[in-house]
Amino acid sequence: MPDFVQQRHKPPVSLQQPRELLLACPPMRSNINLSRIVRAAACCGISRIICCGNARILPEISRETGDSIQIEIHRTLLPVVKRLKQEGYPIFGLEQASNSKSIFEFPFPRKVVLVIGNERLGIEDEVLRLLDGTIEIPVYGLPYSHNAATAAAMALYEYCRQYPVG
Amino acid sequence: MPDFVQQRHKPPVSLQQPRELLLACPPMRSNINLSRIVRAAACCGISRIICCGNARILPEISRETGDSIQIEIHRTLLPVVKRLKQEGYPIFGLEQASNSKSIFEFPFPRKVVLVIGNERLGIEDEVLRLLDGTIEIPVYGLPYSHNAATAAAMALYEYCRQYPVG
Repeated sequence: MPDFVQQRHKPPVSLQQPRELLLACPPMRSNINLSRIVRAAACCGISRIICCGNARILPEISRETGDSIQIEIHRTLLPVVKRLKQEGYPIFGLEQASNSKSIFEFPFPRKVVLVIGNERLGIEDEVLRLLDGTIEIPVYGLPYSHNAATAAAMALYEYCRQYPVG
Repeated sequence: MPDFVQQRHKPPVSLQQPRELLLACPPMRSNINLSRIVRAAACCGISRIICCGNARILPEISRETGDSIQIEIHRTLLPVVKRLKQEGYPIFGLEQASNSKSIFEFPFPRKVVLVIGNERLGIEDEVLRLLDGTIEIPVYGLPYSHNAATAAAMALYEYCRQYPVG
């Protein structure tokens, strides 16, 4: 029978190159959800996150992310997405939409912007129109939709799985 | 340019057979975390979750999970894990431990018990000793550990990815 000993402060995995996934969040209803996303993103080695509106990162939720993640706060998302598109980023939205692809079959571009939806409203139409595609996480049971921060964490996980060392 | 239209209440994916992953949570510090786990598990089509201690599922967090997930509340986790082991379940823990395997390289048994750790204490030693193995989610940056509910959601995601239709 194998024996396991907790190692709660294992050293993190080293990335061979900085991650080029950029997370873009619209104004969210809940700064708790936003702060959970920031913590998950920082743990995943994501180096840049766009937040909008009255975004406030709650340290009791996000924990100590140090300088590892650059947090940018903008008034609205649309102009930021337009600019990133002009800079050549492929832009994908995490959204249940008419043409969305299952994340299980989605090879992430290494350099990519991932747009998250607002808890109630999802991704606004004007941003949707700019996207190169939408991806969705299959759901199997009630309540038929993941919490926004949970969905974001799952998508970040999938990106890391595809790029385990950067 | 593709056009995307939100479909926020898409029908769920049908499972070809009921899922046989059983989630086992020790007494948790936060019923918010526990309720987030319940919501994620229900969305993933998990049909049974063990909760312990002063577990209380908060409907404003878990949302309407209906009868899709069976929630069992026990006093402590150890006797439950012992019983499940006797019933023949392979039992794995989600924990940073000395011999843990990266979840990226872990083929889940279809029938399995996944033990989650308490937010502060992780999985207690007596439960650890009963495990067939531990799996961990690689982390890349500060704060070097995922929130317990976030980690649980990522592991559930991975299980669903491996068994996309059950």
